[in-house]
Amino acid sequence: MVNVAVLGARGRMGAEAARAVQAADKLDLVAELDVDNRLEELVEAGAEVVVDFTHPEAVMDNLRFCVEHGIHAVVGTTGFTDERLDQVRGWLADAPGVGVLIAPNFSVGAVLMMRFAEQAARFFPSVEVVELHHPLKADAPSGTAGRTAELISAARRRAGMGNVPDATTQEVDGARGARVGDVHVHSVRLSGLVAHQEVLFGGQDETLTIRHDSLARTSFMPGVVLGARTVVERPGLTVGLEHYLDLD
Amino acid sequence: MVNVAVLGARGRMGAEAARAVQAADKLDLVAELDVDNRLEELVEAGAEVVVDFTHPEAVMDNLRFCVEHGIHAVVGTTGFTDERLDQVRGWLADAPGVGVLIAPNFSVGAVLMMRFAEQAARFFPSVEVVELHHPLKADAPSGTAGRTAELISAARRRAGMGNVPDATTQEVDGARGARVGDVHVHSVRLSGLVAHQEVLFGGQDETLTIRHDSLARTSFMPGVVLGARTVVERPGLTVGLEHYLDLD
Amino acid sequence: MVNVAVLGARGRMGAEAARAVQAADKLDLVAELDVDNRLEELVEAGAEVVVDFTHPEAVMDNLRFCVEHGIHAVVGTTGFTDERLDQVRGWLADAPGVGVLIAPNFSVGAVLMMRFAEQAARFFPSVEVVELHHPLKADAPSGTAGRTAELISAARRRAGMGNVPDATTQEVDGARGARVGDVHVHSVRLSGLVAHQEVLFGGQDETLTIRHDSLARTSFMPGVVLGARTVVERPGLTVGLEHYLDLD
Amino acid sequence: MVNVAVLGARGRMGAEAARAVQAADKLDLVAELDVDNRLEELVEAGAEVVVDFTHPEAVMDNLRFCVEHGIHAVVGTTGFTDERLDQVRGWLADAPGVGVLIAPNFSVGAVLMMRFAEQAARFFPSVEVVELHHPLKADAPSGTAGRTAELISAARRRAGMGNVPDATTQEVDGARGARVGDVHVHSVRLSGLVAHQEVLFGGQDETLTIRHDSLARTSFMPGVVLGARTVVERPGLTVGLEHYLDLD
Repeated sequence: MVNVAVLGARGRMGAEAARAVQAADKLDLVAELDVDNRLEELVEAGAEVVVDFTHPEAVMDNLRFCVEHGIHAVVGTTGFTDERLDQVRGWLADAPGVGVLIAPNFSVGAVLMMRFAEQAARFFPSVEVVELHHPLKADAPSGTAGRTAELISAARRRAGMGNVPDATTQEVDGARGARVGDVHVHSVRLSGLVAHQEVLFGGQDETLTIRHDSLARTSFMPGVVLGARTVVERPGLTVGLEHYLDLD
Repeated sequence: MVNVAVLGARGRMGAEAARAVQAADKLDLVAELDVDNRLEELVEAGAEVVVDFTHPEAVMDNLRFCVEHGIHAVVGTTGFTDERLDQVRGWLADAPGVGVLIAPNFSVGAVLMMRFAEQAARFFPSVEVVELHHPLKADAPSGTAGRTAELISAARRRAGMGNVPDATTQEVDGARGARVGDVHVHSVRLSGLVAHQEVLFGGQDETLTIRHDSLARTSFMPGVVLGARTVVERPGLTVGLEHYLDLD
Repeated sequence: MVNVAVLGARGRMGAEAARAVQAADKLDLVAELDVDNRLEELVEAGAEVVVDFTHPEAVMDNLRFCVEHGIHAVVGTTGFTDERLDQVRGWLADAPGVGVLIAPNFSVGAVLMMRFAEQAARFFPSVEVVELHHPLKADAPSGTAGRTAELISAARRRAGMGNVPDATTQEVDGARGARVGDVHVHSVRLSGLVAHQEVLFGGQDETLTIRHDSLARTSFMPGVVLGARTVVERPGLTVGLEHYLDLD
Repeated sequence: MVNVAVLGARGRMGAEAARAVQAADKLDLVAELDVDNRLEELVEAGAEVVVDFTHPEAVMDNLRFCVEHGIHAVVGTTGFTDERLDQVRGWLADAPGVGVLIAPNFSVGAVLMMRFAEQAARFFPSVEVVELHHPLKADAPSGTAGRTAELISAARRRAGMGNVPDATTQEVDGARGARVGDVHVHSVRLSGLVAHQEVLFGGQDETLTIRHDSLARTSFMPGVVLGARTVVERPGLTVGLEHYLDLD
């Protein structure tokens, strides 16, 4: 059994994470802390792994405390700049056995979609991304769609591919979507949807489509559990859940 | 048997139409004419129905000739303005038994998609259109997508519906697609595709999707055959194949 | 305002129905009754419309009481045989102003899918149904898929269509699905799904697909609200929400 | 430039392969041979690579000749048993610089679909395969679907996964599809389709779908060209195009 504590346990994601840890084999939930608690309670509870869904303003202090006390960390909190990542690496240099996973996305399905899209990119002259969300979403395209398009764009560049074929000469403004790198991205907003994305690749008389559908934020939880189980064996800083999936 | 002649028989659509008429039960292909032929050959061949896939500059002369000689006409040629339609109606007023069908789209699947979309429109607060075509297409969105969005928009207006829900405040230019009426339309261009369209409706925790896929221009032929068989029983001017489908 | 009472208000569907009525414009929720209540409370509360999500053993008594007291009824309870429907018609013969709607499915999207499928059936030689549900479902295919296939089969028969084309000579048992009438029906069971169905039609080089996705039982509520608003203007017995959608 | 000869050049696949080689950069088509030609013409034409789309009865003689004469081979002909593969390996042992690629499927999209499905298999409790083809197909499920299901089954076994969740207790015969290993496979046959496949994975509140659509046999040609370019650098026997895709 691995002793796990959740930081940010009263937030929506943190509360889900606590439930998921509690339900998971081989993990023991030993503490649920939030903004009113002292970090020392992690030590008192015997936490070996911390799951952090807190706030960009709190997460760096949390991480320094964990690393200094030999506690591994699985982090879903956002706001990590290159500078912040370097700082975490610095702390970890003095704690060689400790592992930290910082992941922008804990959905295994979404992470696989991005990884497969990156791998497929250099085999198809055409590619576009269509993401579909509920109509309350403020940004378009979604963060995941933007990240997917960037990964594809970079893979095409590395493979020396030219532009996608596109003979459009008459376009009603916006019809061909947003450009992220050289990838066209389309954002659909529709009642009855939650969070969905399709990556469409096209070549000679064939297409390959990779689609991810998420119906609830609980879809992130298998990734959190996988992170908590794996982080104890992965010292140092890991950015991105894909590195824990051992895809190769 | 109904005697059918094809005008524009050397063009791509006309040649397909001739083949389809020849293969169809109850239709007899009696003439294949093109720009070098005289219209009188229609009479000499005993044509009862003409299928016209010619050119906007030729089609009005063809139609006047047909109506004056009591020949029914099924027309896939484009370029019909309200003025031209009125002119055809004028000719038909003097030829009470003659029928003319002018159809912008002979694909039964596409016509059903548009009709169903129009019917569904007033039951769902959200709707968007995604059309997907080969990358050689010059216009975006496609004519069918534009027409579909207009039909939906009009149905929403008639039902007194407000705007579609959309909380987007940060948009990378073009992400939310083109606006046709109050419908967002997205155009995907991809190698390996031919001509495809999805209409997505969304309401409380449910979505309804109507999708049409066309793999070749031969998909228009069942509609042409249906037109040639039905026009002899429908005197006067009919605009749109949907009126021959007897959906209600 | 129409005064609405819910019968079976402590059940899952009844509780949702009560919430939906309360939230709806032009409807006033005046009573939430369950098995412990007396039907007379409907009269005392001034109910004009009853929404019944109770039990096959209770619903006939409920309906007789409603009709006798001039209260319209919208019924989602199952178990209606032809005999029961005749009995309801008999009661209504003596109460000419009263309307009763009995609907096996209150999802507007599902009802439209079935109606469109029935309309499209005679235009395509090929048709199959794929339904996809969560893996806790006990029956395969789903009731909605079975009903859809029956409607399609009947429409094909009325149009004098022959069998669907199918050259399969080597089949691993079950690969081609279940036969409902002459329609092949496939049932997918998958974690992460809720309730989904696709009807695929195919003709010459084109396909038409109608898909419905339901993410929660709340997707039935717009149909219940529509029923409660419309039943007061539709005296007599109506079976099926489609008759309230005025599609033609 | 690499000099390429096609064997079986008058067959459908061979003719397409010859066209594809001719159109490809860095490849030179130097001979198109069929059953009436002598294999010595390969040497006379200076062929460095042979593309073989012939017949199970001819292919072993062709391969022995090629290996003995130092000509690399890209083989789409079927009928390779373990015994035959061992025989090819034996010949290659004496010709250390020569490469042979034997591939059951040259569609890059289909190969990627299978590879991604195999990689994703251990992350999702649920998985099913739906393949969709034109109604002239004799076998159900398709060879590609069967192979995909076997790969997924083996990956699940290696990961120690149990059965897929499935509470079905009432099944109309065939509704739940064919079982290949522990994967349910559904075969749709529909006019207007060519060759399509979906692999659906499901976990907690999310699904991942990988779909491949092939519209014509020309979709195999980029894989043939890739094979012809790569085989010269890959001595020994390679079975499966996936090994040339360098997916990691």
